[in-house]
Amino acid sequence: MESETKSEIINATNRVLCEHGYAGLTMQKIADESAMTTAAIHYHFDTKEELLNAFLDILIERFKAKISSEATDPRKRLTAFLDGVFTPTTPDSDGFPVAIMELKAQAPFHDLFRERFLDLDEVMREVVADIVADGIDEGHFKQTDPDEVARLVTTTINGAHTRKVALGEPLDETRHVLENTLELHLGWQPGSEVVA
Amino acid sequence: MESETKSEIINATNRVLCEHGYAGLTMQKIADESAMTTAAIHYHFDTKEELLNAFLDILIERFKAKISSEATDPRKRLTAFLDGVFTPTTPDSDGFPVAIMELKAQAPFHDLFRERFLDLDEVMREVVADIVADGIDEGHFKQTDPDEVARLVTTTINGAHTRKVALGEPLDETRHVLENTLELHLGWQPGSEVVA
Repeated sequence: MESETKSEIINATNRVLCEHGYAGLTMQKIADESAMTTAAIHYHFDTKEELLNAFLDILIERFKAKISSEATDPRKRLTAFLDGVFTPTTPDSDGFPVAIMELKAQAPFHDLFRERFLDLDEVMREVVADIVADGIDEGHFKQTDPDEVARLVTTTINGAHTRKVALGEPLDETRHVLENTLELHLGWQPGSEVVA
Repeated sequence: MESETKSEIINATNRVLCEHGYAGLTMQKIADESAMTTAAIHYHFDTKEELLNAFLDILIERFKAKISSEATDPRKRLTAFLDGVFTPTTPDSDGFPVAIMELKAQAPFHDLFRERFLDLDEVMREVVADIVADGIDEGHFKQTDPDEVARLVTTTINGAHTRKVALGEPLDETRHVLENTLELHLGWQPGSEVVA
């Protein structure tokens, strides 16, 4: 559950990570960025690691909400999933890959971060595998291994985020390549119009 | 050109990055790890950024050597490329994705790092696109867009490295998925035996 104060701390953390990286992240910088005192931040989070765990929890919750879809047609669900992953919804969320990358690079040194990334990865793979399996059952997609397609999709998304951060490449470049590859796997290209 | 001393500094830097991350990297830790004095390291590199630029240069040179192949058959060249990317050659190079990831996460804050990653990416994409174009010309691969296949391959490799670092997932898991996808694009699965 996000209280307003926690949200403010979390958004400030996102901005500090995007501007200074993990190496430059301090409680003082988060305080400056959020117009709160470090004491107020410490009231909510004892340590930097605790704050960053909460940060990851909230980012992951927001992301799960973003990739879920009201649609029932697996083709529409797949397009909605890719929209959720590749389209930043707010100027703040455009920095999401940078903030996440900063913490992914810390995963070898922080087991709790790694657990969260494993959780996020599992969620993403399950969502995609479900969509693909349903699409095959309903005759929209070619026969293929849903788990393997899910692994390809999540790995490509990981790569897209890395390229955005390391190379400054827009996420859309990867989306286009992924959609063409999915067409080979599924016999249907995400984003094509679905006539109900 | 790698002198012995520079190699020692570079290998020590790799170990410090793998153990402590970018945030924990200091000249002192590199000195401890290499059994050199910080003064000796400063004689070669004025600043940490200069040292890390040299580190990236050398890693990229080693990587280029690793993905080049004596073979002429495009199928063998593609298999050799994937071997070079996915198989660590020494215990030290097993940490390569961690060290690289630490610096990729710094790319938004260091233009010189970003330039090196852009250079590396271009080299990888050119190697793959060349192999694919030759394979099509020689009738081994199906007609497809070599640049797009190259982009898919490099993005998947970026994702594989991220997964290794963030999730602890072995690189081989991604290799398998990438090979199956390449079979769809090329009509030939890398790693299959080539009868000359």
